[in-house]
Amino acid sequence: MKNAQQIEEALAELSALLGASGYLGGYDERKRHSRDTSTARSCLPIAVLRPGNTEEVAGIMRVCQRIGMPVVPQGGLTGLSGGAVPTEGSVALSLERMNGVIEVDAENASLTAWAGTPLETVQEAARCAGFEYPVDIGARGSATIGGTIATNAGGIRVVRHGMTRQHLLGLEAVLPDASVIRNLRPMLKDNAGFDLKHMFVGSEGCLGVITRAVLRLSPAPHDRYTVLLGMPGYEAAIACLASARRHFQAELTAFEGMWPAYWSLACRMVAASRPPLGTGHGIYILMETSSRDRGWLEEWLEDCLEAGVVSDGVLADSLSAARTMWSVREAIGDVDREIGAHLNFDIGLAPSQLGEFAEACEKALGDLVTRDILHLGHIADGNLHVIVPVPAGDEVTGTEVERRLFDLLAERGGSVAAEHGIGTLKRPWIDRTRSADEISLMRVLKAAMDPKGILNPGKVIP
Amino acid sequence: MKNAQQIEEALAELSALLGASGYLGGYDERKRHSRDTSTARSCLPIAVLRPGNTEEVAGIMRVCQRIGMPVVPQGGLTGLSGGAVPTEGSVALSLERMNGVIEVDAENASLTAWAGTPLETVQEAARCAGFEYPVDIGARGSATIGGTIATNAGGIRVVRHGMTRQHLLGLEAVLPDASVIRNLRPMLKDNAGFDLKHMFVGSEGCLGVITRAVLRLSPAPHDRYTVLLGMPGYEAAIACLASARRHFQAELTAFEGMWPAYWSLACRMVAASRPPLGTGHGIYILMETSSRDRGWLEEWLEDCLEAGVVSDGVLADSLSAARTMWSVREAIGDVDREIGAHLNFDIGLAPSQLGEFAEACEKALGDLVTRDILHLGHIADGNLHVIVPVPAGDEVTGTEVERRLFDLLAERGGSVAAEHGIGTLKRPWIDRTRSADEISLMRVLKAAMDPKGILNPGKVIP
Repeated sequence: MKNAQQIEEALAELSALLGASGYLGGYDERKRHSRDTSTARSCLPIAVLRPGNTEEVAGIMRVCQRIGMPVVPQGGLTGLSGGAVPTEGSVALSLERMNGVIEVDAENASLTAWAGTPLETVQEAARCAGFEYPVDIGARGSATIGGTIATNAGGIRVVRHGMTRQHLLGLEAVLPDASVIRNLRPMLKDNAGFDLKHMFVGSEGCLGVITRAVLRLSPAPHDRYTVLLGMPGYEAAIACLASARRHFQAELTAFEGMWPAYWSLACRMVAASRPPLGTGHGIYILMETSSRDRGWLEEWLEDCLEAGVVSDGVLADSLSAARTMWSVREAIGDVDREIGAHLNFDIGLAPSQLGEFAEACEKALGDLVTRDILHLGHIADGNLHVIVPVPAGDEVTGTEVERRLFDLLAERGGSVAAEHGIGTLKRPWIDRTRSADEISLMRVLKAAMDPKGILNPGKVIP
Repeated sequence: MKNAQQIEEALAELSALLGASGYLGGYDERKRHSRDTSTARSCLPIAVLRPGNTEEVAGIMRVCQRIGMPVVPQGGLTGLSGGAVPTEGSVALSLERMNGVIEVDAENASLTAWAGTPLETVQEAARCAGFEYPVDIGARGSATIGGTIATNAGGIRVVRHGMTRQHLLGLEAVLPDASVIRNLRPMLKDNAGFDLKHMFVGSEGCLGVITRAVLRLSPAPHDRYTVLLGMPGYEAAIACLASARRHFQAELTAFEGMWPAYWSLACRMVAASRPPLGTGHGIYILMETSSRDRGWLEEWLEDCLEAGVVSDGVLADSLSAARTMWSVREAIGDVDREIGAHLNFDIGLAPSQLGEFAEACEKALGDLVTRDILHLGHIADGNLHVIVPVPAGDEVTGTEVERRLFDLLAERGGSVAAEHGIGTLKRPWIDRTRSADEISLMRVLKAAMDPKGILNPGKVIP
């Protein structure tokens, strides 16, 4: 065990290693790095380390490994599960200075960036070179590429492009023992031994610190069309999804569902004067395609209306109309302001099960909540976000809501974390999704790669 | 260490566990399981075990773990790197009786199958349900789903659909300690802790025995068009690829390159009377799109001809014409018959580097070979197959060819195994692609998951 003197010496060593811009010991800086965007309890790190390159990250691991000091990697602090919140006696390792696109390789359709680069910066660099980096989430301005890899971020275009894992060609990561796993080649096919980069994807900073990445770029889409659909209920939404898949194939780029309570609230928030579609529907679908021609979309929409799958539909006729439609979906980011304290669930199920699950939630939680439960999600991905208003500080109710909801989920074989990760908030519930054998294997891998347990301790694994 | 009596007892126990159809001790059966399709030296297993379900696989691991008896998992024995060849004193664990599609879930676009199901059976079951399982390789009739997962099989549609990893929704695998890692849900998004299924993808049977899988299905394409292009050289091919990507986006489903020596040989093999395109080009591209309309393809082809990127092009005007074009590409499977003994390389590089690499091979190997070196590959994936004729039994020349070729590759940052895996044949060369730190981490993972080293020993890790 480390003692106070060892810690002092280690901090002095880290300060010397990183210099004034790399080592921050002041209260304000430590405060800024004491929490993420989740409701997880904040905790002051004993210092904030901001390395400027991979060698400094390795240097940090060397010092911390020696005395067993916990290290908590941090990206843009936009996580919703507490995965980047410091633990008692830890140092925060922020990647914010390792920021920037290193190379766009147009010939090989790839981009190399430092882990601390914001997602939006990568998206823009891709766009400027005539490509698209299609991973997209609401927090794009702050979330970093390293963070999106460590959480295997999903977002709105998974139906077409998959999650972050699918876009990762190369990776550099520093292990707790300070060794560097580096494979920064723009190669699509590379089966020379175990593919180590996949160890770090979705590992939430528990197995290594991601420092650089090579990302695969997609060709920029010809055009995008956005359409808002109202339909009688969830069964119609699933029939509509199957039809859209057959018709649009890989041109279907988003299929987002909003249940009535969320729809009404979000419309009030962003488009008070004139909602983009009438109310009264059982479910609202925001769909996007990258078709070459609008006719292909109009034709499909007419067929759906005729067949009664869709009750009403509006095709955005301008960029601004499309933006308004999307703003209703993205209003979820500001929902705090409207409804105050709430629990945010991010569950995964087979797409066909989401409608019944949303109903079951309403029924099971009815006596615990006094305000509307909000449901919205990435239907094609089988990913539902459930927002349950619970008074701030009422932990008893909060825990009971979690217990009931996760029990419903376990009965249906769902996942307690579709895209937000486990962090600390979902850690007590991971056994609703993972078997004892699975959790045991996670422990084996963690112990093998981080035998002293210094990297992001207390996260993910119960 | 195990002694003869322990082995006898273990075999008796296994025989009792598996019954007459599950335990084969005869010479002919052992001979049939003594090698794969590669040139790796064959070795008789001491018995062939053919479990009928997951519990029997676990039972086998329990017995073998106890006395430290090596277990070599086998699928369709179509591997080209020796990954499924028994080692001295091992039992072969064949998945051939765990064969069949368990469920096609049309609503959730997924299919569940036993690991021993041939790839082609899965493709057909998907087709019958109005879907496509887009992983496709020449050995589709024999290669099993479990084998394609264990090697992360690629093939001809990676440019559009990615490798096998990308299609895997759920997996069941048995660890060396007989515990079962089971997650057989059709979920696209599931980030609840480390995503364990990725440990087994491409691990070549060294970390667990894959028993069942849930695969993601794609919508069946509207139509397929095949076009054969002749162009002056590799630079034109790369320009043509960039243009095709921009124009067809996700409708570009294959972009296969054949160098002149291969082209001439393959045309003689399959279409002696009338090759599908004239000779004299610097490179031949077989391209496939899933466009909705032929006009979109014709327009693009005309532009390419006008711009001089493409020297000549033929659009297949019937299914049989398309089949002839593909048969030229797939003639590689029968090349043994024509050229006799040869070494088969499967290298990965950035797509833009393949042309220069092929030239460098010709130059570097000129004094070692007396017959044509053949080059062909999946250009969009940066995956080149190099066929080097070397007299049977001439190991000195063979090793020198390997050394020179892999040195060229290492200088360029390439991979010694793009899609065929490491097995035993590429194991001496893995350090040309992977750093000491990477190999060391592979060892750490292997030791953590298989501490006694009983699963497929001597494969992958040097």
